[in-house]
Amino acid sequence: MPAVSRERLKEKIDRFKTFGRTGRGGISRLSLSPPALEARAEFCRRCRALGLDVTTDDLANIYATRGGTEALPRIVTGSHLDSVVRGGCHDGTLGVLAALEVVETLVGEGVPTRHPLTVMVWTNEEGVRFPPAMMSSGVLAGKFGKEAVLAVRDADGVSFAEALRLSGYQGEERNRLNPRDCLAYLELHIEQGPVLHDAGETVGVVLGVAGMCNYTITVSGQANHAGATPMGKRRDALFAASRLICRLHEELAGLDESLVFTFGRIDCFPNLHTIVPGEVSFSLDARHQDRLVLRRVVEAIKSLPPEIESCAVRHEEAWAREPTAFAPELVEYVRKNADALGYPNRDMYSGAGHDAQYAQDMLPSAMIFVPSINGLSHCEEESTNLDDCWKGANVLLNTILDVDGSGVERFTSEPVA
Amino acid sequence: MPAVSRERLKEKIDRFKTFGRTGRGGISRLSLSPPALEARAEFCRRCRALGLDVTTDDLANIYATRGGTEALPRIVTGSHLDSVVRGGCHDGTLGVLAALEVVETLVGEGVPTRHPLTVMVWTNEEGVRFPPAMMSSGVLAGKFGKEAVLAVRDADGVSFAEALRLSGYQGEERNRLNPRDCLAYLELHIEQGPVLHDAGETVGVVLGVAGMCNYTITVSGQANHAGATPMGKRRDALFAASRLICRLHEELAGLDESLVFTFGRIDCFPNLHTIVPGEVSFSLDARHQDRLVLRRVVEAIKSLPPEIESCAVRHEEAWAREPTAFAPELVEYVRKNADALGYPNRDMYSGAGHDAQYAQDMLPSAMIFVPSINGLSHCEEESTNLDDCWKGANVLLNTILDVDGSGVERFTSEPVA
Repeated sequence: MPAVSRERLKEKIDRFKTFGRTGRGGISRLSLSPPALEARAEFCRRCRALGLDVTTDDLANIYATRGGTEALPRIVTGSHLDSVVRGGCHDGTLGVLAALEVVETLVGEGVPTRHPLTVMVWTNEEGVRFPPAMMSSGVLAGKFGKEAVLAVRDADGVSFAEALRLSGYQGEERNRLNPRDCLAYLELHIEQGPVLHDAGETVGVVLGVAGMCNYTITVSGQANHAGATPMGKRRDALFAASRLICRLHEELAGLDESLVFTFGRIDCFPNLHTIVPGEVSFSLDARHQDRLVLRRVVEAIKSLPPEIESCAVRHEEAWAREPTAFAPELVEYVRKNADALGYPNRDMYSGAGHDAQYAQDMLPSAMIFVPSINGLSHCEEESTNLDDCWKGANVLLNTILDVDGSGVERFTSEPVA
Repeated sequence: MPAVSRERLKEKIDRFKTFGRTGRGGISRLSLSPPALEARAEFCRRCRALGLDVTTDDLANIYATRGGTEALPRIVTGSHLDSVVRGGCHDGTLGVLAALEVVETLVGEGVPTRHPLTVMVWTNEEGVRFPPAMMSSGVLAGKFGKEAVLAVRDADGVSFAEALRLSGYQGEERNRLNPRDCLAYLELHIEQGPVLHDAGETVGVVLGVAGMCNYTITVSGQANHAGATPMGKRRDALFAASRLICRLHEELAGLDESLVFTFGRIDCFPNLHTIVPGEVSFSLDARHQDRLVLRRVVEAIKSLPPEIESCAVRHEEAWAREPTAFAPELVEYVRKNADALGYPNRDMYSGAGHDAQYAQDMLPSAMIFVPSINGLSHCEEESTNLDDCWKGANVLLNTILDVDGSGVERFTSEPVA
């Protein structure tokens, strides 16, 4: 079966590690920051060297296209080049570089495709500099309003609109991904979890992306002097929040074994060792592929007592996202190719969000996962073995060839019952 | 019995509320900041107008002295004029203004004292701009090294040494409070807790200051993706910390009913809703008048398991302070005068630290508490009724007169068994 070049893929990964490198094995490459622009420039330079046609849209998403032999809708594959602060070198970048390597393989071996093939770089997937995450795919899918995201400012007060203008990558709105002109979207990505690594498997056949709900829970007590306030007179918001976290943890753990939930952020006021905390807020993020399970999470939150340890409890939905199921025929190609290549694989859901889930709202899409060593992600220790990167790119290559040769005019987007 | 002027005391309190006023009922008057220097200038102006001799020492502590009729050691009374950020108008300031009002009463009524009487303003009691708290009294008592505190920098990088130099209040080291030349130190202060207010009492006869221990407890897990990490594979530092806080709370609550303990500060890394927390540290502050009870707190901390919820637990002592017992004969004068004036009062310990506790390390000392409305302190809602301020000042006046007339050459510093 056709395969990409392991050496060329290694060279690409090593080169792109240098843009925003932290010196401790990771990268800090916030969206449209100077190192992110360097990575974009290198990507475009390589695409043009391969003879691809490079355009950008109004959100600075990049489209690098190799023409097809027939007048057919395009096949799109890609991911993102931005990272979190002190993140890893494979998150997003691998999907872009594998896509580029697939095209380089086809060009190098003189293999044409019937459909045009577009390598895509999405702008601001991480949403660290400009929240929310998956900003540009979200705008294209109609999840976020363009005016709203343009107004978002980073920590230095720079708006997303200004950053786009200054980037040199802002193009025309008419260049946006046009679902009517696209056959499929495919994205290779690291798993960002430990499932494949722990099982010793190489490929995750991604059935869909878990839905999520995210709440902010706020506990209001009374700030007071840590030495002068008897225990019985306290309304200690941090003690109350700690009890609430333990209680919710126990309750949610009993709902479903594949539910994941996280209390990731906690803010305490005034947060001084000598003051009884007056107000604490914390986040609760819960994810599952079944919206009925998520509904039970919301019920648990709404059933919280109005008061705990004499502190008032309130909750507010920060956001929610419906589960996404990928296009079943595309998922089947991924599974078939992983099997045919002899790569141990499993069906799985993505707990993380990806541009592919918003792409799936627009056109039939699928994802391929490769293992994250020790399941680590969004940290400098994040890594994936070169061999696994190469195998993932081979699954991507063969899936693209299958889609290209399928003769299908329109894949099913709806999950099979 | 002699009494101070309620109207003059009100005028003083109202005037000093203006220095650093926030517009929401409180003050922000960080040590040696422009509003703190305005308050000092007004204090010195008023002292000089009363004919007092004003000197300052190398730490900018202010001493305003009215001479006595005999060659005897001085009686010292005072407190501090600095505040926390958005603090109250009575914390510290009341003790300075009541002392000033006592002298103004004696001057106004032509009542001489045998002993010189010194009104003192301690520099940087709060320790908010330059930690630690009670910095200057601590240096005089030998608790902190002078070089070390001079090097402490505020959030803008200004050192305490520079702030002292720029203040215009830095005097000679030889002007420092000299214990051999002092008979007693007395300090009126707001309670900063709810005990007197809730009991409807007017005066707290302060037996001493609780000892304290302060630990930082750190829980180390593994930061990871909130969506991609199955529950069973997590090492969630915030969940572990929440369980630890609940467990310690239960254990410490059983030790002694007058023990107070606070988890006041919590820091979570990376503190993002979409990341499983990798490291959480929190503070534990515990206070009690009996060092044996504090020892049991330390034992509980040292008995923590090395691991909880797969996260490593470590603890580090941040600081500790031995309990202080005030001079019993001075405490008895306070109690006797509160009784004689018909003010409902109770014996109590201070859970908050005060300059008086370091003064007690140098010379026989005592404190008088007045109620904090609703027990609030270190916040803009902090307040004390004028009537209670006035009554506290009357106890101070009569206690000073008792000390002055006692004929005692040296009070006992050790607690009676």
